[in-house]
Amino acid sequence: MSDRFAFSLDATDGPARTGRIETPRGTIRTPAFMPVGTAGTVKGMLPGSVAETGADVLLGNTYHLMLRPGAERIARLGGLHKFMNWPGPILTDSGGFQVMSLGALRKLDPDGVTFRSHIDGSRHRLTPERSMEIQRLLGSDIVMAFDECPALPADRARIASSMRLSMEWAARSREAFGDRPGHALFGIQQGGLEEDLRAESAEALRAIGFDGYAVGGLAVGEGQAAMFGCLDYAPEQLPADKPRYLMGVGKPDDIVGAVARGIDMMDCVLPTRSGRTGQAWTRRGQVNIRNARHADDPRPLDEHCTCPCCRGYSRAYLHHVSRAKEMIAGMLLTWHNLHYYQEIMAGMRAAIPAGRFAAWEAEFHRLRAEGDIAPL
Amino acid sequence: MSDRFAFSLDATDGPARTGRIETPRGTIRTPAFMPVGTAGTVKGMLPGSVAETGADVLLGNTYHLMLRPGAERIARLGGLHKFMNWPGPILTDSGGFQVMSLGALRKLDPDGVTFRSHIDGSRHRLTPERSMEIQRLLGSDIVMAFDECPALPADRARIASSMRLSMEWAARSREAFGDRPGHALFGIQQGGLEEDLRAESAEALRAIGFDGYAVGGLAVGEGQAAMFGCLDYAPEQLPADKPRYLMGVGKPDDIVGAVARGIDMMDCVLPTRSGRTGQAWTRRGQVNIRNARHADDPRPLDEHCTCPCCRGYSRAYLHHVSRAKEMIAGMLLTWHNLHYYQEIMAGMRAAIPAGRFAAWEAEFHRLRAEGDIAPL
Repeated sequence: MSDRFAFSLDATDGPARTGRIETPRGTIRTPAFMPVGTAGTVKGMLPGSVAETGADVLLGNTYHLMLRPGAERIARLGGLHKFMNWPGPILTDSGGFQVMSLGALRKLDPDGVTFRSHIDGSRHRLTPERSMEIQRLLGSDIVMAFDECPALPADRARIASSMRLSMEWAARSREAFGDRPGHALFGIQQGGLEEDLRAESAEALRAIGFDGYAVGGLAVGEGQAAMFGCLDYAPEQLPADKPRYLMGVGKPDDIVGAVARGIDMMDCVLPTRSGRTGQAWTRRGQVNIRNARHADDPRPLDEHCTCPCCRGYSRAYLHHVSRAKEMIAGMLLTWHNLHYYQEIMAGMRAAIPAGRFAAWEAEFHRLRAEGDIAPL
Repeated sequence: MSDRFAFSLDATDGPARTGRIETPRGTIRTPAFMPVGTAGTVKGMLPGSVAETGADVLLGNTYHLMLRPGAERIARLGGLHKFMNWPGPILTDSGGFQVMSLGALRKLDPDGVTFRSHIDGSRHRLTPERSMEIQRLLGSDIVMAFDECPALPADRARIASSMRLSMEWAARSREAFGDRPGHALFGIQQGGLEEDLRAESAEALRAIGFDGYAVGGLAVGEGQAAMFGCLDYAPEQLPADKPRYLMGVGKPDDIVGAVARGIDMMDCVLPTRSGRTGQAWTRRGQVNIRNARHADDPRPLDEHCTCPCCRGYSRAYLHHVSRAKEMIAGMLLTWHNLHYYQEIMAGMRAAIPAGRFAAWEAEFHRLRAEGDIAPL
């Protein structure tokens, strides 16, 4: 633990990197997967259980928290860590992405964005300055610059103008954030799938100077091949001595492919959201536990998994409680999914310093290709 | 622990009793409150967490489990304990009560009851013999005789004929249960609010001979005063050397009043169900956490409570997650409610041998009369 924010690289293996981010609230081992605690809770989990899966850091959503219960309220109550009972580091997004995906009647102007809440229709405005203020009120350890991001596909002119607006907002975010020892501000690279626009964006961010850099604007519908194509060049456009964060990614193979291309941090709702709809992720791929073939299966999801779900419950039980819409179905599957995601991260963190990342990756893909265990 | 089922009384204080039920799966300290694990899960809780609240025994519902996932399936999977990952004792009801309250198109005849599933409309039949078979397939430690119970108010003739049918079914249940060392069969007293019918029912059950005796047919709409009126005589009509179980009760003050009248065991969905709708029970009464007055309250539900909900979370947080319909709201409030219920039981179990049950009860009512803490 440290009284300031610092990143150190421990080892690399090709583009893949492992290291640690020190914060006053604890160390984040990279590559790191951040479970999403949208509205002040990782859905279906108690915070202590999230920590047990091996997560070092959570993501909180500025958009959700500003609307309900409100950033000023959380500040009065002592900040988001205390509010949600998570003592470790928290990264908050800027709200920009979710305003555009969830907010109603949104109107973008060069200064910011005005929108109505999807909860109660109330009117709100986000600007780089207000986003910095909200993230400060929440007490976020890692603050994201306020940006704007078009859905893909979009034409090059739209991507370029959006990226340049985001770079202006990045500078305003940096200015508004000020100097806050122990807290970090990350800039967000945009530019869609255009390598030269990505380079221009990276250059603009470097010139402003951030504590870390996100690759933004991916995982918005372009597909894995296009995303990996972008990740073949985008991370190395960013400073090597700062953490690189790929926002909103992804499935297990997306994550492994991103780390293989030099990414240090990721977040995604997938392991939590799928757990609530009967979807499990294992070393051998995806399992839909509601499928009838599991109804009499006494085996766990994954006999090699050490999570409480796999240690205590059969597929038959998970099938039953998921079909019966019992809360425990979402609780156990979410726990398993987050545990498996953290196991992937731990595996990569061990493989990289040993110089065996490629072998680890090959074994990861070999097991997935085998597919789920056959019915009894 | 014991290889057989046995009940021993440790102390009495007036009609209030404390003791222990030994079973091969563990000891049940009485008076005992049994959380309800309807369909193979105590809703919103992991079994280890239920045990942490101090629960020694769970209740499972024959009606729900026979319909989904099916008793034969649970037997093939190794029984209900293994299926739901609860190694301790389990009591199962007979299915009779829930057939009458939940089953569709139900038709009662002297041999049993035919009905359609509320889940998929499939046709089913329960008789005393089939109920015993299902409870054996589930692996229940404490099996309830199959009975029939009219809703109150009902006229005396209906109550009498229903009670006499239940006594015939009790004899058939006893016959069908047979001799199963380590497993117990409880008879169920009926007779509505008619003291002489209750006495007749108790006599019939004694003549058959059971390992424990339930007071059935209460908490079906008669109100607390009428229920307590019945409990002023019903428990003492039953054998003093066997456990006495009041089915489906109740609110905290119902439970305390029942123990004061000689009851040893109770079950109720109230602490779990209310937890999922934002209702908490504390030493100072009921709290509706969705009420706006909690939105900014940094205090826990009960500052003297040691449950994870009260140790980690403010009323403001619980208000937020309950309003936002987050799973953690039901998880935390259920945990708190079950913890509080078990705290009541532990308090009574300590007060009775010390001869201070009346003082304990007076303090219980004094705190409740004070009402919830005032807003800040």
